[in-house]
Amino acid sequence: MPKNKRGKQSFVLPEMPVITAWASIAGKKEGEGPLAHTFDIVSNDTYFGQKTWEQAEKQMQKMAMDTVIEKAGLQKNQIGLVYSGDLLNQCIGSSFTLRNTGIPHLGLYGACSTMAEGLLSASMAVSGGFADRVIALTSSHFASSERQYRFPLGYGGQRTPTAQWTVTGAGAALLCTAGTGPRIDCCTIGTVTDLGIKDANNMGASMAPAAYATIKAHLEDMKRSVEDFDLIITGDLGQLGKELLMELARRDGIYLGGRIADCGTLVFDTAKQDVHSGGSGCGCSAITLCGELLGKLNSGKLRHILFCGTGALLSPTSIQQGLPTPGVCHAVSIIGGSD
Amino acid sequence: MPKNKRGKQSFVLPEMPVITAWASIAGKKEGEGPLAHTFDIVSNDTYFGQKTWEQAEKQMQKMAMDTVIEKAGLQKNQIGLVYSGDLLNQCIGSSFTLRNTGIPHLGLYGACSTMAEGLLSASMAVSGGFADRVIALTSSHFASSERQYRFPLGYGGQRTPTAQWTVTGAGAALLCTAGTGPRIDCCTIGTVTDLGIKDANNMGASMAPAAYATIKAHLEDMKRSVEDFDLIITGDLGQLGKELLMELARRDGIYLGGRIADCGTLVFDTAKQDVHSGGSGCGCSAITLCGELLGKLNSGKLRHILFCGTGALLSPTSIQQGLPTPGVCHAVSIIGGSD
Repeated sequence: MPKNKRGKQSFVLPEMPVITAWASIAGKKEGEGPLAHTFDIVSNDTYFGQKTWEQAEKQMQKMAMDTVIEKAGLQKNQIGLVYSGDLLNQCIGSSFTLRNTGIPHLGLYGACSTMAEGLLSASMAVSGGFADRVIALTSSHFASSERQYRFPLGYGGQRTPTAQWTVTGAGAALLCTAGTGPRIDCCTIGTVTDLGIKDANNMGASMAPAAYATIKAHLEDMKRSVEDFDLIITGDLGQLGKELLMELARRDGIYLGGRIADCGTLVFDTAKQDVHSGGSGCGCSAITLCGELLGKLNSGKLRHILFCGTGALLSPTSIQQGLPTPGVCHAVSIIGGSD
Repeated sequence: MPKNKRGKQSFVLPEMPVITAWASIAGKKEGEGPLAHTFDIVSNDTYFGQKTWEQAEKQMQKMAMDTVIEKAGLQKNQIGLVYSGDLLNQCIGSSFTLRNTGIPHLGLYGACSTMAEGLLSASMAVSGGFADRVIALTSSHFASSERQYRFPLGYGGQRTPTAQWTVTGAGAALLCTAGTGPRIDCCTIGTVTDLGIKDANNMGASMAPAAYATIKAHLEDMKRSVEDFDLIITGDLGQLGKELLMELARRDGIYLGGRIADCGTLVFDTAKQDVHSGGSGCGCSAITLCGELLGKLNSGKLRHILFCGTGALLSPTSIQQGLPTPGVCHAVSIIGGSD
């Protein structure tokens, strides 16, 4: 067994990376939601000053990256590595953010689990002594996602009750070998889980089995129980996916009860903001983490959370070919810091 | 400076991961090329027994993964982690290969640099003690790439002289903490480099500046010279991109001369196989590495190579929006093993 590996899917970080700074950029609708006060920048311009929604997404990532570097009191050339990815085909939000910055970059594809995958990957790089000052970065945009994954917005298609609303936003977290802030003590790498869900408008059902598999693996690998956490928080299962997750756990005798929450139901007021099952997209868990969650961990209002980034590996091509949508979930255990 | 970091973009691996097994799966045209004898499996069926080209790509990755596991004498449940990605939107070649295998998976997006990005990421995971028996896996398919990035094949569009031919193939390499085989001693993480190339049919020109930037960074960070390597081998610059790389180096007084080679010009007989500037795609460097190169490193015919995975971050969306194609290149330094 490798020295830092635990169980089947988890690893510990003997030198715990410290999240010394974080930043979140949000769109208009997100800025009207319950977490509005936690975002660094809210823009009422859907295009973020750009000509296209795809370039708007690049701009949000750039703003998140620039803001986190500024908040840490650093310069761009002091950043050792950026892990990033997004929902756009070929991850062009990420590649155009990083181009000609001179910052070493490793591209990820984890759909909406990207923020957790980035934190997990950055944790290995920092704790292993391979890089310092590593940023995990991601974004999503309602308009660029709708036209790529579903319909042109002008078509005005009706949304199903199980549909989720892609968050317009970008989040960035900076991981360092030292400093003050919340710390990552261990992570669990997800497996691609598929129970055969073919409804492209029910991503919660695609992701819930993956979320449960990863949470279960984390508890087993790390010999922990639900009560060890103030909060087990999934990325973007939405209301329906959250209920499915709780049901899957209950069947195994695990009661998630008051400890479970989902970024997709926190980032919007699902009753008032017409988002149906809740928020989704890489930006959903990213802006909830890089504002509300890290803020509360830093101030001591939260002591220990399991941040479970969930991704529906949704593809219009495979859907059109009659295939289901597999899900994935990566978990990052974060301990509250002190100022 | 983190303990294993060197210079601006590189890191060393104090406990060198050993590449104990590798496997390559190739299509018909690749099986008619000069490296035919190095592939584990060559299929004359473009569909690899599947109904669609996208599923064929999944099937190739599955065959590469299964073959490398079998060659290593292992079972699936002994694999600690798979890093993989591909060129299909949402990387469905990778996600459908991994689904319901129970193997921990981290998805990458590095376009045609994916094999190098996977080796580099796996090196950190193995050397840092976070996982053991880690596979780096990727694929590409001529037919699925053509219709996604360019034209429907039935359209019969003429190819420009600078165009490259996407390799149909998949490669897998298994990295372990111990065993016999070639070893990875250090890696250099690339930066996204863009000199404004807007011709989507000239990917060599998009990638050459990134390749040069990474090779230069490796030599500087590691205090090495070109003569320290038997071979500096790029992923898929093709004939034109290789010439541009040599010219960029020459302007800085670096003579790559007889030490440079490109997988895109090795995998096909460019004079006879009508592939214009050479091979490309994630599969290009993957099947060249996981056959010819690792074979020669293992037998002592090569002592030390710098494997430079090159990626054109090509997107039909950004091309249509008038943007250039940035490039990226990650370098992995591999030392010959002994049987």
